[in-house]
Amino acid sequence: VSAAIKALTFDVFGTVVDWRTSIIAEGTALGERLGVTLDWAEFADAWRGLYQPSMDQVRNGHRPFAKLDVLHRESLVTLLERFAITSLSESEVDALNHAWHRLRPWPDTVAGLTRLRTRFTLATLSNGNVALLTNMAKSAGLPWDAVLGAEVSGHYKPQPEAYLKTADLLGLEPQQCMLVAAHNGDLVAASKAGFRTAFVARPTEYGPNQTRDSKAEHDFDYVANSMEDLADQLECG
Amino acid sequence: VSAAIKALTFDVFGTVVDWRTSIIAEGTALGERLGVTLDWAEFADAWRGLYQPSMDQVRNGHRPFAKLDVLHRESLVTLLERFAITSLSESEVDALNHAWHRLRPWPDTVAGLTRLRTRFTLATLSNGNVALLTNMAKSAGLPWDAVLGAEVSGHYKPQPEAYLKTADLLGLEPQQCMLVAAHNGDLVAASKAGFRTAFVARPTEYGPNQTRDSKAEHDFDYVANSMEDLADQLECG
Repeated sequence: VSAAIKALTFDVFGTVVDWRTSIIAEGTALGERLGVTLDWAEFADAWRGLYQPSMDQVRNGHRPFAKLDVLHRESLVTLLERFAITSLSESEVDALNHAWHRLRPWPDTVAGLTRLRTRFTLATLSNGNVALLTNMAKSAGLPWDAVLGAEVSGHYKPQPEAYLKTADLLGLEPQQCMLVAAHNGDLVAASKAGFRTAFVARPTEYGPNQTRDSKAEHDFDYVANSMEDLADQLECG
Repeated sequence: VSAAIKALTFDVFGTVVDWRTSIIAEGTALGERLGVTLDWAEFADAWRGLYQPSMDQVRNGHRPFAKLDVLHRESLVTLLERFAITSLSESEVDALNHAWHRLRPWPDTVAGLTRLRTRFTLATLSNGNVALLTNMAKSAGLPWDAVLGAEVSGHYKPQPEAYLKTADLLGLEPQQCMLVAAHNGDLVAASKAGFRTAFVARPTEYGPNQTRDSKAEHDFDYVANSMEDLADQLECG
């Protein structure tokens, strides 16, 4: 399989970076500054809980494409109200919203990507917007060759256009691209679009009591337990 | 000025890479393989001569947006006929067309970009397509944070959408972006779109008898004679 693959395209939230721990840390630091006591794990989970519903409004045509920064901020305003946090200025809300630009990588991510990049083109195939992903890459040291995905496609995964446009931008056929993701549904959609598939297990993405996506549930081309493991299997460096 | 600038966006052909010398070298090597004697400098100049006219067909609405790889190949087919080169297979034409994916950087480029990247986000703002620029970056070692420009904008420079969409994708206002280019017209168009401007002189881009763009003809924010010089002026590393 791997000889025909030219590009590895990556889901980012959960697969490359640990959004939950990162958002909890940002919230906790903010809470200490504000003197607010809150269950920031609950807040992080609630924020992520509004992620799919917010994109559904775009997917089903109820609103035109809006970049994820915009959807994240709308969800954040909803949650600040729900959690009764009233003391943030507009620029403080913006700064908290940009916590998603500062998510931290899993411990194996940077070393694994660096090895994978010696053999493949590495591109994001994320629902995150270009600015979010570019800022994240700079702060986390993620060695992308190209920052692609939903925003440049005008469609959110798992809509097929997101995968197909990313392959087209890379000048490749879908079967020359492999999606690397920690989520079964994303990989199934990529496979339907013609992509190769690699599952990387992130069994604590959703916290200690994770009930979904703990393991590969389909016959993917590769199943790995880290980016380093995937680099081993793909014989990179 | 520079404190307000968050991203440097780059013209690529001529500014970052020396397309003419690179195409001449690729042609010369091909000619030797084929046993064809040809003035490859004339061929390179003729190929580049069809560049603006081919994009004009898109700019003026006579055809829908087509990526530069497609336009380059159409021009190449025209020139192979004009230069009476009949022995190339389709895949050899493709391979020659991809010479644009393998253009070599100017001697100061990689060191200069590496320094500039310590302080700014670096993105392409090129009429080259994403695959061309991504492949070039890998072969030439160009440290882009994001590969943007005409293809993701759906518009070729100097149309304003190319600059404005690139800034929008970076999550920035136009005045937070600076175009770095060796071409006066490109910089004037960027300035009209609200960008800051940096002219980097490439007085041999068009060969030894260059008559245009030898120097800055407008009041740009920065005027430099190399990427290293620009890095000095912007106090990078």
